[in-house]
Amino acid sequence: MPPGDTRQRMIETASRLFQRDGYHATSWRGLVEEAQAPWGSIHHHFPGGKEELGVAAIEAGSDAVAAAITYAFASTRTPAGAIERLFSTSAALMEASGYETACPVASVAVASAHESPALTTASRTAFRRWEDELADRLAAGGVPRRRAPALAGHVMTLLEGALVRARVHGSAQPLRDAGSLAADLVRQAAAP
Amino acid sequence: MPPGDTRQRMIETASRLFQRDGYHATSWRGLVEEAQAPWGSIHHHFPGGKEELGVAAIEAGSDAVAAAITYAFASTRTPAGAIERLFSTSAALMEASGYETACPVASVAVASAHESPALTTASRTAFRRWEDELADRLAAGGVPRRRAPALAGHVMTLLEGALVRARVHGSAQPLRDAGSLAADLVRQAAAP
Repeated sequence: MPPGDTRQRMIETASRLFQRDGYHATSWRGLVEEAQAPWGSIHHHFPGGKEELGVAAIEAGSDAVAAAITYAFASTRTPAGAIERLFSTSAALMEASGYETACPVASVAVASAHESPALTTASRTAFRRWEDELADRLAAGGVPRRRAPALAGHVMTLLEGALVRARVHGSAQPLRDAGSLAADLVRQAAAP
Repeated sequence: MPPGDTRQRMIETASRLFQRDGYHATSWRGLVEEAQAPWGSIHHHFPGGKEELGVAAIEAGSDAVAAAITYAFASTRTPAGAIERLFSTSAALMEASGYETACPVASVAVASAHESPALTTASRTAFRRWEDELADRLAAGGVPRRRAPALAGHVMTLLEGALVRARVHGSAQPLRDAGSLAADLVRQAAAP
């Protein structure tokens, strides 16, 4: 298969296993086997080993959440509706995974913050990107510009916290509840 | 030293390392060394090994957060003030740890949900306990009883999400921001 496929499949597999089992519980060997990647090409794609793959998984997670934000705003007519859609998409993913999904960045970041500056930097960059993107879109949707960054922060806090509670409770309800609250906050902030 | 001390120190050390490094990255050997526990007595205290210690760490974390809730309500005059204190206590702990603290339950639960029913059950029990405790205290503080459970859920979502964002950003600001929002929500719900 083309080399690009191997690299991409390694990243997708890593992201899924990091979310399900955590970064540390996922062994390099298990990853290679699950991705059905040829051993020979792996060190070519990730000479930095698991840490380099961790950074790639964080960057892929960053792209995926940014795309979910873009989709939510493109497919709804109000910023409150977009925020509600962002949470309902997460709720659907959580249910479809049997409650084994998690934030693709936090699942790597929280366990590795102590040991890897590269993973810490990649995670922080991803969170800032989402928060900036959300703030810009909220401001474009009618939220006063000066209030947009704090509101974007609240939305991200609610999303991250609801992912944790949904996982622990084995229920998507926390994501739906948090989505309603986040949409209310946006509606209030965007009110003329 | 008395056997109770060894057990207690093992649990405290485990809780700290699970929060800092994650459940999986913390080895049984590293734990024993860090706790300076005699090898001979460890299997006596935790015949079920790391999983049993994980359950004990979750239960200790459950007690610690429940105590923080009790303290917050005992040391303030309004439920909104209590919620703000709960978050400011977390912010202070996060700063004091150099941003290496985390929810003592989520840090074990999220990485282990796939593999250990015992850890999943213990985590869910802890979250339910906190949410029930918060709902009772909010209702006692003037929040209409029917609204208290949902409000308690929002408070926990904000706390868990802010812990994740504080860790990733290396800043206690997300905890302070989330505390202000949570206190506002409680104030609104408790208004006559």
